[in-house]
Amino acid sequence: MTKTAAPLPRLADFAFLHPLRVRWSEVDGQGIVFNPNYLVYFDIAINEYQRAIDFTYPDGFAQFGTDMFAVNSSVNFRAPARYDDELIIGVRLAHIGRTSYRVQFAVFRGDELLADGINVYVNATRDGHVPAPVPEPFVAKVMEFEKLKPTR
Amino acid sequence: MTKTAAPLPRLADFAFLHPLRVRWSEVDGQGIVFNPNYLVYFDIAINEYQRAIDFTYPDGFAQFGTDMFAVNSSVNFRAPARYDDELIIGVRLAHIGRTSYRVQFAVFRGDELLADGINVYVNATRDGHVPAPVPEPFVAKVMEFEKLKPTR
Amino acid sequence: MTKTAAPLPRLADFAFLHPLRVRWSEVDGQGIVFNPNYLVYFDIAINEYQRAIDFTYPDGFAQFGTDMFAVNSSVNFRAPARYDDELIIGVRLAHIGRTSYRVQFAVFRGDELLADGINVYVNATRDGHVPAPVPEPFVAKVMEFEKLKPTR
Amino acid sequence: MTKTAAPLPRLADFAFLHPLRVRWSEVDGQGIVFNPNYLVYFDIAINEYQRAIDFTYPDGFAQFGTDMFAVNSSVNFRAPARYDDELIIGVRLAHIGRTSYRVQFAVFRGDELLADGINVYVNATRDGHVPAPVPEPFVAKVMEFEKLKPTR
Repeated sequence: MTKTAAPLPRLADFAFLHPLRVRWSEVDGQGIVFNPNYLVYFDIAINEYQRAIDFTYPDGFAQFGTDMFAVNSSVNFRAPARYDDELIIGVRLAHIGRTSYRVQFAVFRGDELLADGINVYVNATRDGHVPAPVPEPFVAKVMEFEKLKPTR
Repeated sequence: MTKTAAPLPRLADFAFLHPLRVRWSEVDGQGIVFNPNYLVYFDIAINEYQRAIDFTYPDGFAQFGTDMFAVNSSVNFRAPARYDDELIIGVRLAHIGRTSYRVQFAVFRGDELLADGINVYVNATRDGHVPAPVPEPFVAKVMEFEKLKPTR
Repeated sequence: MTKTAAPLPRLADFAFLHPLRVRWSEVDGQGIVFNPNYLVYFDIAINEYQRAIDFTYPDGFAQFGTDMFAVNSSVNFRAPARYDDELIIGVRLAHIGRTSYRVQFAVFRGDELLADGINVYVNATRDGHVPAPVPEPFVAKVMEFEKLKPTR
Repeated sequence: MTKTAAPLPRLADFAFLHPLRVRWSEVDGQGIVFNPNYLVYFDIAINEYQRAIDFTYPDGFAQFGTDMFAVNSSVNFRAPARYDDELIIGVRLAHIGRTSYRVQFAVFRGDELLADGINVYVNATRDGHVPAPVPEPFVAKVMEFEKLKPTR
């Protein structure tokens, strides 16, 4: 059920990698990173990705009156990360639709894949949360930045 | 892409419901519950479910030398929860395999569905994280408790 | 240095007590509640106190154009709380000044004192964070509610 | 009450400074860093301090059968930090006693002081939490490292 035909993500797939050290506050009573923190890592990493492509969060979208709202997350936890581990978070824009986009994430320790997942974000108005077209400058910067070009 | 043919979960599907009030610490700069906190809510609710079926975490599994490790999470964020909202978290054991089980979660405000998701847990040894058969007493208590019986 | 002549807070000192169960997400790799979470507990409990006196956060202050901003926290960690412990958080308005107020907190497990502390809050404008007189209705409700009346 | 005669900490007081960028998950509905996160920042920074003096947490203490347990925290929140701010956390061992030590922290944005505080830690056995003499190698490394030598 958690298996798919898709190949596992590899470090080399990602044009953007963000390093991050596991904090004591992120480890639970099992001595490993508490699962919800992987979604926090994804959030940190997408924000750093946006900085890297020069479309900084939240101003990049705010100038269009919109913000990003996650509508779906899926994560595979493959091996535990532990306190003080030096992780690398890969971020890749995998698909850009009219009002939403899909981002692939992967968490590595060295070249070992610890977790990976997909977040789907809707671009929506800041107040009413009404879907709006993904801003063209964002799309243009992503298309220029990515090695494996996002599907449209 | 985030759509499936499966019908949306309803309050009435769940034999177990856990009430929970949104904390200030769980709300972010958008004024809504930060997405990773839904996985925290799921975690709280599965622990309360285990209490409800009298197979308390972590002792229930620990007496068999095992613990529960999430291997996969998927969540749909359908509408935002806000500070001080009174939420109801539904928990249902949807499938029990040999060494893993699948749990369905749903977050309601009144009867409005705000989020729902699935966690897959592996029952594994506490130290080596080696998969082991799901303890029979757990299975028995779940099968007795659930209205919509889990698939096997 | 952590010692004072002041007597330890006791359950009976508090007109308001909020029950709370320790979550798995609040426990760290030492198997005990991670220290910063006591400040989270204080925050939850002051918000519930405000509900109890019918001056709900944040609306109570917002109607005066102000909000509460902690300017100082001090906490004594006396004994560790553990996963699934049922805690009781005591809240008491200890002092009300012109633009600030001091709140005493204590965390009990049964009648055992696990932690206690003081938060000082400034009542300040929501935007500029400019101190403003503590709203009279808040003062009146506190003075009516407390057993051990706050100093002024 | 929150005022003391002690001069405010300055960047130049600290032999150790740890840079840190504010995460979205650390900001609350007021749009500023939620107070308990300053204790998380202190925790991150003391762990990095220990790395800097080559007495890495938790192994440094664990080889003596002990761990560090905070018994007291006090924090002054002087100005709010916001999302994406680049902070600098200063750490200084201020006092070393027989079984405990006092650590001073300060949070800067540029050279602006946003928060500062003191944590008192007891060196205690990992299991029984029984106070034990602060390991001599830790003391020696601290005394060598600090510019403003800790009191004893």
